[in-house]
Amino acid sequence: MFSTEEMSATFSSEAHIRSMLRFEAALAHAEARAGIIPHEAALSIEATCKVELFDIPALYREARKAGTLAIPLVKELTGRVEGEASRYVHWGATSQDVIDTAMMLQMREGIDLLVAGLLEIAAVCAKWSEQHRHTLMVGRTLLQHALPITFGLKAARWLAVTTRLMGELRERRAQEIAIQLGGAAGTLASLGEKGLLVGVYLAEELHLPGPDLPWHTERDRIVKIAMSVGVMAGTMAKIANDIVLLSQSEVGEVSEGRAAGKGGSSAMPQKRNPVDTTRAIASARLAVGMVPVLLSGMVQEHERDVGGWQSEWAALPELFCFTSGAVEGVRAAVVDLEIDPARMRANLDLTSGLVMAESLTLALAGKLGREEAYRIVQEACQQVVASGETLHQVVQGERRIQEHLSSEEIDLALDPENYLGSTDALIDRSLAAYQKIL
Amino acid sequence: MFSTEEMSATFSSEAHIRSMLRFEAALAHAEARAGIIPHEAALSIEATCKVELFDIPALYREARKAGTLAIPLVKELTGRVEGEASRYVHWGATSQDVIDTAMMLQMREGIDLLVAGLLEIAAVCAKWSEQHRHTLMVGRTLLQHALPITFGLKAARWLAVTTRLMGELRERRAQEIAIQLGGAAGTLASLGEKGLLVGVYLAEELHLPGPDLPWHTERDRIVKIAMSVGVMAGTMAKIANDIVLLSQSEVGEVSEGRAAGKGGSSAMPQKRNPVDTTRAIASARLAVGMVPVLLSGMVQEHERDVGGWQSEWAALPELFCFTSGAVEGVRAAVVDLEIDPARMRANLDLTSGLVMAESLTLALAGKLGREEAYRIVQEACQQVVASGETLHQVVQGERRIQEHLSSEEIDLALDPENYLGSTDALIDRSLAAYQKIL
Amino acid sequence: MFSTEEMSATFSSEAHIRSMLRFEAALAHAEARAGIIPHEAALSIEATCKVELFDIPALYREARKAGTLAIPLVKELTGRVEGEASRYVHWGATSQDVIDTAMMLQMREGIDLLVAGLLEIAAVCAKWSEQHRHTLMVGRTLLQHALPITFGLKAARWLAVTTRLMGELRERRAQEIAIQLGGAAGTLASLGEKGLLVGVYLAEELHLPGPDLPWHTERDRIVKIAMSVGVMAGTMAKIANDIVLLSQSEVGEVSEGRAAGKGGSSAMPQKRNPVDTTRAIASARLAVGMVPVLLSGMVQEHERDVGGWQSEWAALPELFCFTSGAVEGVRAAVVDLEIDPARMRANLDLTSGLVMAESLTLALAGKLGREEAYRIVQEACQQVVASGETLHQVVQGERRIQEHLSSEEIDLALDPENYLGSTDALIDRSLAAYQKIL
Amino acid sequence: MFSTEEMSATFSSEAHIRSMLRFEAALAHAEARAGIIPHEAALSIEATCKVELFDIPALYREARKAGTLAIPLVKELTGRVEGEASRYVHWGATSQDVIDTAMMLQMREGIDLLVAGLLEIAAVCAKWSEQHRHTLMVGRTLLQHALPITFGLKAARWLAVTTRLMGELRERRAQEIAIQLGGAAGTLASLGEKGLLVGVYLAEELHLPGPDLPWHTERDRIVKIAMSVGVMAGTMAKIANDIVLLSQSEVGEVSEGRAAGKGGSSAMPQKRNPVDTTRAIASARLAVGMVPVLLSGMVQEHERDVGGWQSEWAALPELFCFTSGAVEGVRAAVVDLEIDPARMRANLDLTSGLVMAESLTLALAGKLGREEAYRIVQEACQQVVASGETLHQVVQGERRIQEHLSSEEIDLALDPENYLGSTDALIDRSLAAYQKIL
Repeated sequence: MFSTEEMSATFSSEAHIRSMLRFEAALAHAEARAGIIPHEAALSIEATCKVELFDIPALYREARKAGTLAIPLVKELTGRVEGEASRYVHWGATSQDVIDTAMMLQMREGIDLLVAGLLEIAAVCAKWSEQHRHTLMVGRTLLQHALPITFGLKAARWLAVTTRLMGELRERRAQEIAIQLGGAAGTLASLGEKGLLVGVYLAEELHLPGPDLPWHTERDRIVKIAMSVGVMAGTMAKIANDIVLLSQSEVGEVSEGRAAGKGGSSAMPQKRNPVDTTRAIASARLAVGMVPVLLSGMVQEHERDVGGWQSEWAALPELFCFTSGAVEGVRAAVVDLEIDPARMRANLDLTSGLVMAESLTLALAGKLGREEAYRIVQEACQQVVASGETLHQVVQGERRIQEHLSSEEIDLALDPENYLGSTDALIDRSLAAYQKIL
Repeated sequence: MFSTEEMSATFSSEAHIRSMLRFEAALAHAEARAGIIPHEAALSIEATCKVELFDIPALYREARKAGTLAIPLVKELTGRVEGEASRYVHWGATSQDVIDTAMMLQMREGIDLLVAGLLEIAAVCAKWSEQHRHTLMVGRTLLQHALPITFGLKAARWLAVTTRLMGELRERRAQEIAIQLGGAAGTLASLGEKGLLVGVYLAEELHLPGPDLPWHTERDRIVKIAMSVGVMAGTMAKIANDIVLLSQSEVGEVSEGRAAGKGGSSAMPQKRNPVDTTRAIASARLAVGMVPVLLSGMVQEHERDVGGWQSEWAALPELFCFTSGAVEGVRAAVVDLEIDPARMRANLDLTSGLVMAESLTLALAGKLGREEAYRIVQEACQQVVASGETLHQVVQGERRIQEHLSSEEIDLALDPENYLGSTDALIDRSLAAYQKIL
Repeated sequence: MFSTEEMSATFSSEAHIRSMLRFEAALAHAEARAGIIPHEAALSIEATCKVELFDIPALYREARKAGTLAIPLVKELTGRVEGEASRYVHWGATSQDVIDTAMMLQMREGIDLLVAGLLEIAAVCAKWSEQHRHTLMVGRTLLQHALPITFGLKAARWLAVTTRLMGELRERRAQEIAIQLGGAAGTLASLGEKGLLVGVYLAEELHLPGPDLPWHTERDRIVKIAMSVGVMAGTMAKIANDIVLLSQSEVGEVSEGRAAGKGGSSAMPQKRNPVDTTRAIASARLAVGMVPVLLSGMVQEHERDVGGWQSEWAALPELFCFTSGAVEGVRAAVVDLEIDPARMRANLDLTSGLVMAESLTLALAGKLGREEAYRIVQEACQQVVASGETLHQVVQGERRIQEHLSSEEIDLALDPENYLGSTDALIDRSLAAYQKIL
Repeated sequence: MFSTEEMSATFSSEAHIRSMLRFEAALAHAEARAGIIPHEAALSIEATCKVELFDIPALYREARKAGTLAIPLVKELTGRVEGEASRYVHWGATSQDVIDTAMMLQMREGIDLLVAGLLEIAAVCAKWSEQHRHTLMVGRTLLQHALPITFGLKAARWLAVTTRLMGELRERRAQEIAIQLGGAAGTLASLGEKGLLVGVYLAEELHLPGPDLPWHTERDRIVKIAMSVGVMAGTMAKIANDIVLLSQSEVGEVSEGRAAGKGGSSAMPQKRNPVDTTRAIASARLAVGMVPVLLSGMVQEHERDVGGWQSEWAALPELFCFTSGAVEGVRAAVVDLEIDPARMRANLDLTSGLVMAESLTLALAGKLGREEAYRIVQEACQQVVASGETLHQVVQGERRIQEHLSSEEIDLALDPENYLGSTDALIDRSLAAYQKIL
């Protein structure tokens, strides 16, 4: 429930073995290009690197005993490659080379899937930024009414953070997704003089950058990717949570789209629960839980680790899967979200004009200084609460305000439309950044 | 790779639905006993509560839309129950009642599986405590040689913590595994006057305690169980890590048993890697990652949560599965562990008697006070390191020691066998606690 | 901002050294009772074990170099004890014995401080449980209106979890707070035959239980305490979050008490922010962050750890301090909380009777079966939303309901007062459990 | 014990208030430049923004009540600014603007401190990379002997990851450290038309980039910085742990430098414990614990958060302080580290040539294929273990090897010096990357 089918497929056992085979084929070609093994052998190895030929559950059973999937896979692959070519399978590589590179290939796909989902979210938020540019709603701080904002600005902020994080993910994809090739202890000794050359060719074959050095136990690449994905999960939870809060019965400014069988209760016929956003939040919580596993797993011993590395085999797939659940939850919520501008306006007015208190303060502050203005308006606000009058009504009776502000100035100061500051320009900025990343 | 088949089965989709059906059947009987629904209806419902009758993937697809598995399951179950009885399916209950109680049933089984594994570990450790009661080895603090201990004592400490934690798990099983029954908002309103009575009967039907109050959003029970399981995972990692450290090439005091295909390297023919302990450590790291997900998920809103509760549906199964991987890894390692007492003794002697420095200090301290004795022996130790002589040799030439201790006293003070303190009694205590829990 | 003064004092540098000195004095007396050192020496040592005599910052500077506070403290103490007695300072103990036992003494105080705060919270919740036993409010699931509950029941649930966790903390205090005494490698070799006896006496001197075995690298005791404290922090966040949600401008059912300078905004004169609950939530988040540090620190090497143990020196104080901040935040919030029963009632009515949908369903279900009743009421609910009529009005025109229920039955089914189920009994249970723990 | 004095000072209460005052002064100047307030007012405000003028403990006491430090500070500052100018203090800003920007200023300093420490570590590693380029040692995988490497390569890998992460930190410093200016709800309404312009000037005054949009509740910037710092902490722990493992009594290849009072034991005179690395590991564990607090704190409500934001006030300082402890621990360890090349060589030879098994396999593989060669060499290795002979001796009697390899070829294949692959080139790469970042 907390992943997408596509992401689960990308990180399935089958996909992992497919990626490992892709490494073995690419390695063979790289070594053939470097003159280490015959080109025919590489072709023959590549021809056998087909996941359909392998018994995946059997490989995993063996892996459990061997301690790594690479050992049974290489053995099985060697057995299946015919003739001379079988001599050259996995030449010069170590288990970690194939497993790490395979995971990198999978994470590259994973990032692309995440970005695809994010682009859909961004598109909706961009649309809202324009459409609801002037749709007044109340800004809430510490869940208390603060000032007028517009729903367009809220959407523009969601858009901005999504855009920034797509940039971050793309940067990580370009910089950190790299091959692993170091041989058994990171010296490339098994490839004699040609280790670095094979690395260059291998990277080309897989369309990945070659890293500066093998990184068997320096996991900064992995963890940096993981953290950027984790930040994405956290951001999805933020957006989903805002939607949930706006959907509360007492708020009612948005609600998830209706669909048959969606969001009901097994007990209460009137219920229309937030489903997609709930899934997004739950998924994000799970995703975020993987980050410390990876981070604390950085303490890897010497040239190959005991335990921390292996925990990545589950933690990375889970991180990507759960994050895809978070992205998908938000995506599904926003594409069908019902928005109620009238309710937004009604809620803005709910506190009898109190949300214009800062505006009034500033109008007065030019005359009286910020502090005295603040005090006077604060007293007026208390009177609003106590009396049930609106701020406008209270102001009429407040000599200290009447003395300094004309009736027109007061009307202006109490009009939410007139107190939106740079809202428009900020929306434009967010849209511009989005256009740029597209 | 980081779970056991049994535990994975206990927390499979099928098992979850089976447990939910078990709740529905038990609820029907409880309500029949309370006079709310006819006994025939309960029998009829029970007869339909068979997991084989349900299309599990289809239920999960629907659950994704509905937001909870309970809705499609109750619908499907209602459809399958024939006649009048179908009216009474899920009577008065809410989604969370069935899902939480089902998870409790699964966790009860999960704890039993964990304890079964722990009992095997404890049995081996108990055997070692006896057999290696007098097998000298070096105690290591901050990974430096400290004092002589025996392997029996080390095993007795592993036994003691395992025993303590089995006690903790059993306590949690008895106290915290409980039914959930609160109805839609925790008032049991849907059961009229009979809510508490139904709770009593339901608890009886499922052989679970009835809790004081419904606990829809008070997740202390869940998190207390999770934490005790997490402590168990952490403890498994400690034992596994000790074994890995003792298995280092330079230490060589123990090694995992040999088996065909076990612990090799795809590159290095001489390798014999620790496999089971590595799996234990990796699994424990993953298990431990679930604990903060559950702990931070305690902030659950009002009468049913958005996101935190739902994240438990994945976090709890993963916690139990990964912990089972940790327990199984340690179990597999200890049942076949090869122990090399000769190497233990050789390592004890590796530092030329320095491990007896405290013993010598104490022998002297009776004469000179702790501090001066410490200083004299420290100088002697430095001479051992500088000269390559043994501590015994250095002591021969150290007037300040010769003056106060006879040759016999010195021999006694430098004999590891003679400096084991309460080792025997501590082993006995650990064995006694183990016997008591059996 | 996220601790209390009392808890910060309990875990200050000074308090830690005071506790270490308390250990040294108690050890000396225990050893005197066991006949290992002279009674006069013990008295003399005790007389010097006064924190005022020590230069705390200097000790910490030395500790940084030495790697542990015990080394400079023991050195300084030995230097200050006059005459013969100085020979017997710290006799037979190791750094970890004194540091671990000192931390246990501090945690015992820490638990008492937490429980004191919790008792205040419980007292308020108990008062509310009685006073607001019949104060109707809406129960909210997934932040949507669900069913009527009473504020008394909500308070009773807060009371119940607080009571359960006080029980847990007391249990931990009784079972897990224990002395540490093992000597350098856990054999008590430095105390010859008398190690266990000294342990018994030491425990008596400090009014702590003696553990089964030394637990230098078996940290289950520590982590079990930490986890119970963490669960408490999580629970405080839950209660605080409920209060924050009830305080939203659109909900307004409760608000934190007014006080000069409390909860304003530097910009907005009308603001009245939740301050104490915000502090509680922030503190709890910080507290919860310490739990995985402690849990993942359980992997401690051999007989003394490198890094994991030392991290406890900061993690445990922070855990207790942050948790005290959470408890204090909730305490401060509840003692002055303003409760608005009228607003609760108004919110209950906000959705035109939809919260009685389940009640109506059940009234019908007796006639039509649960499923058909559910369908009919669901349609009626949709009509309420679409038409703006109340559920009562819609029901008047719904033939399928009129046929089966009399007008009186309908009125009964739509009356919130009449649909509170076991609310009263559950409140009584919570109060009874609270009375029992007092 | 787990921080440095410089970092603690950078994140002290005083430093925080100094940074807040710096914001207020810069804001005043920015507003003067924008024509909103008089230049004289800005000068007067700046003159009062001196931390020495404020009673810091009193401000914190008030902050506790107010919920934020900004409120009492702005009040106090306003009171201290004389005449007209006091009207313009904090003009148009909100609490979060000043607190977030102040934290950014502190983090900028914090990053510089971390980088300074890392540069010292890198310098030592670079020196070792050159000096020990050819110092043979054994590469260890899963803590088992694998292949020959050189200590220069190990140092070059530490250098490479340190260099990469300095690059990451500098990137974060340049991209993510930015001002916060949004006004009460992120619209900049309080600055009328001039909000964006004030932002530009404010950023200039503080030498910080202006962000695209206010980021009150979009905490990606904060968390990205935190994560990069966390990765640094994790990396320090990895290096420290390697050093600890190399320092084990049985390994003895390196040890922390001697200094009076360093690394002793209160019980054992012979002990020389790793102190700096232990502190590094403990500090890193604590630092890493802050990352999930920040990450899970990303779910911030609407336009200002309840709890998550506030938890950053403690979590960010702790993250930086603990990470500085980790960096300082590693720095102190490496600058004085004693390196024992003879012991490295001796350990390489400890397993009688088994570490050359892969080398021999590859020599044979050219003749027999990888798999058969592997099998033959594996059998030879088993014979080495069983017989106590060296691999060289066993090979002499192994017909299947003698047939294919000449005596010279065998000698070459068994010579560690001859099996270092790309070691030299990888060291050069690491040094080149380091030179580039300098």
